[in-house]
Amino acid sequence: MSIYSPSIEKLIESFEKLPSIGHKTATRLAFHMLDLGEQEVQEFISSIQNARKNLKYCSKCFNISDTDPCTICANPKRDENVICVVEDVKDIIAMERTHEYKGVYHVLHGSISPMNGIGPEDIKIKELLNRISESKVKEVILATNPRVEGEATAIYLSKLIKPFGIKVTRIAHGIPVGGDLEYTDEITLMKALEGRREI
Amino acid sequence: MSIYSPSIEKLIESFEKLPSIGHKTATRLAFHMLDLGEQEVQEFISSIQNARKNLKYCSKCFNISDTDPCTICANPKRDENVICVVEDVKDIIAMERTHEYKGVYHVLHGSISPMNGIGPEDIKIKELLNRISESKVKEVILATNPRVEGEATAIYLSKLIKPFGIKVTRIAHGIPVGGDLEYTDEITLMKALEGRREI
Repeated sequence: MSIYSPSIEKLIESFEKLPSIGHKTATRLAFHMLDLGEQEVQEFISSIQNARKNLKYCSKCFNISDTDPCTICANPKRDENVICVVEDVKDIIAMERTHEYKGVYHVLHGSISPMNGIGPEDIKIKELLNRISESKVKEVILATNPRVEGEATAIYLSKLIKPFGIKVTRIAHGIPVGGDLEYTDEITLMKALEGRREI
Repeated sequence: MSIYSPSIEKLIESFEKLPSIGHKTATRLAFHMLDLGEQEVQEFISSIQNARKNLKYCSKCFNISDTDPCTICANPKRDENVICVVEDVKDIIAMERTHEYKGVYHVLHGSISPMNGIGPEDIKIKELLNRISESKVKEVILATNPRVEGEATAIYLSKLIKPFGIKVTRIAHGIPVGGDLEYTDEITLMKALEGRREI
């Protein structure tokens, strides 16, 4: 026989299914949900439901947004002639945190991965090429993740985009700031050497 | 201007309000909620709503339960003559995990804390005394937390219960199993000395 009542058991299980939530945290969250006021619980539930209802993909860059086009594409201060290609919506957030990049984005929603049965037609590559052919883009920055799939996708894209006569760049690989040579893996170190610049 | 769309921002905030969830985990959970299928989200929301709707306090021991009396009070194998008094519903779970205790419980829903304006009448003490006077209880185990408030509550309760001619016990304080004398605070060590037994 279980220690908990079925309703709590079910609630704890629900929280346990969420990423990065273990049994102890799930139990704490479940009891917290019981302790909350009715209004607070309603707000919590509404925030989930509203986000799912209101959010859509931007028809230009496929970022997730309440509006279409998204706030970045709709911002006249952003340079439409530079497109940064990323794998995921969360990568936009990471880029925006630098407060340096002033161009726009294109979210592929994945990377080419034959091992997982994801081909070029399964991610937003066609849409990227359409964008490039329809506007006067000057530079495409390939910011896919520095893993096998991200690299392959970047190489694939560069071959497709170069015929348009557009500058194609890849974000630099190297030792992270604050990193330690001693603990850097050999591939990163090799990339850091390759990408060395005169000072 | 915020990086995220208002709906995501709101969803992340909702998760951030939960205990032991920081900004990074909240962001991960928010995006997870967007990625989930409609049915999975419905199940998650229902589990919260059902738990809040179905769960009630057991009218005997004030445990939280889908049924009244709760599964522990309703279990004929449990010894009704031994009552373990705890501060919180979660303390029952901790006790049950030992698989040793076969009596029943009484949840005080707090401890006497004049600093926080919680007096004896604010927790389920009257209900405990009613229970004791109406049945043939043999032993009351005081398992309130070994902190100032829990100790004070235990002492207060023992004075009220002893006149009934019932055995009143307090759970033992001492060095936790696997603990280290060197790192044990002096009060715990003092309690461990006081509670020493012949072997």
